[in-house]
Amino acid sequence: MQNWKLTLAYDGTAFHGWQVQPGLVTVQGELQAALRRVLGEDPLPQGSGRTDAGVHALGQVASFALEAPIPAGNLERALNRTLPDAIRVVGVEAVAESFHARHSAVAKTYEYRIFRGELCPPFLAPYVHVCRWKLEMDALRGAAADVVGEHDFVSLAASDPDAAAREGEDGVAKSTVRTIFSSEWAEEPGGLLVYRVRGNGFLHHMVRNLVGTMLEIGRGQWEAGSMPGILAAKARSAAGPTAPAKGLFLHSVEYDQC
Amino acid sequence: MQNWKLTLAYDGTAFHGWQVQPGLVTVQGELQAALRRVLGEDPLPQGSGRTDAGVHALGQVASFALEAPIPAGNLERALNRTLPDAIRVVGVEAVAESFHARHSAVAKTYEYRIFRGELCPPFLAPYVHVCRWKLEMDALRGAAADVVGEHDFVSLAASDPDAAAREGEDGVAKSTVRTIFSSEWAEEPGGLLVYRVRGNGFLHHMVRNLVGTMLEIGRGQWEAGSMPGILAAKARSAAGPTAPAKGLFLHSVEYDQC
Repeated sequence: MQNWKLTLAYDGTAFHGWQVQPGLVTVQGELQAALRRVLGEDPLPQGSGRTDAGVHALGQVASFALEAPIPAGNLERALNRTLPDAIRVVGVEAVAESFHARHSAVAKTYEYRIFRGELCPPFLAPYVHVCRWKLEMDALRGAAADVVGEHDFVSLAASDPDAAAREGEDGVAKSTVRTIFSSEWAEEPGGLLVYRVRGNGFLHHMVRNLVGTMLEIGRGQWEAGSMPGILAAKARSAAGPTAPAKGLFLHSVEYDQC
Repeated sequence: MQNWKLTLAYDGTAFHGWQVQPGLVTVQGELQAALRRVLGEDPLPQGSGRTDAGVHALGQVASFALEAPIPAGNLERALNRTLPDAIRVVGVEAVAESFHARHSAVAKTYEYRIFRGELCPPFLAPYVHVCRWKLEMDALRGAAADVVGEHDFVSLAASDPDAAAREGEDGVAKSTVRTIFSSEWAEEPGGLLVYRVRGNGFLHHMVRNLVGTMLEIGRGQWEAGSMPGILAAKARSAAGPTAPAKGLFLHSVEYDQC
């Protein structure tokens, strides 16, 4: 058996998220089906974490073991010929048996893209959240800085019934404490406002809830310094709404070694 | 009554083409529904021509008359608030009663986008045809030049049962003769190869059949000088396959006056 690490980019628009679900088209399911067609083997690829329906990826990572001896380049080409256009394998690496896309991850980076221009081109719409509110950049930047470091992020975790089951899925301990290494807003060409956050793990909906909360602060609905209080409240009700899935990209996953 | 000219951009991915069809989501149907919601009026907007399922538009034009007096800017904003993100109104103009989006059109420009790079990003895939064949640019350019001028394009028209009914829809005489003003291939940044064609009208599937035929010539399947013979054959079977819808964009429609 050879253990493999795959790096994937996907357009989440047409998928019911990463995780296999009966009767639904998912990224994990498409990848499993492609491996079956290409190699006649049926491993369930393990992702670095789930992405929800509509969430995109530039560098999702999956791992699985295969019996068949196959050169990495051939595996990449065969999968890209078989997978739908909306999923592309952008890297293939043979890795040690101990490598696991979720358990071995040491950091993840997400991007959230907001369109600020007058008229959002229809071809960009599936990949951005259109937000026309006047936003105070200093307030946004301050709120982003307030989450850097180790915090209990339960206020920003999904409050849905699945939440408990999903905790710890990101490979970090089964608690709601996470460490954020960097958290920044950038104004970019084309009317884009991009939030980038890198941490050792993220709870379900955490990035989208962070963005939804920061937008409330940025538009002056809540005070500029309110993020520490929101974290301290340890209650989902203290935070803002969940920003739409389509603006979110899993940018990359980092590992110590493969 | 005031007659209106609307310019529309849309991502055709999720629509069953332009034309209203019972039980299907179409661009014309969404625009009609938006006018109903905004103004309580129910005109059927007339397009400059149909676009097929999956075909995109940067500057489709529609015309209709409204009873309600409403400033152009307000109409544009109200429609963009109501329409799905995949359809944007990019221009609104009050026009003379005689203006008709289809009958008044004097020229149309289409673009066909082909991706030539190693790996097509999933976010670009809905808007390009991925073609990995080695292509001879001189042969492509020669074939494109061969269609400039007035020709009977019946070899490049859809041979489906609808074809007869659709002929003449583009506002030109109910014949298969059309005049092409320009027809050119351009290599563009990002691994794109773009075909642009401007003419007084186009038969159903004509641009996609032209592209499919030129690609056969460009990859050496057919001889470099075979386009005149294909036109002269006046038979669909003489031409190449229909290139996929997703690479095609209706770029713009021209009018003498509005």
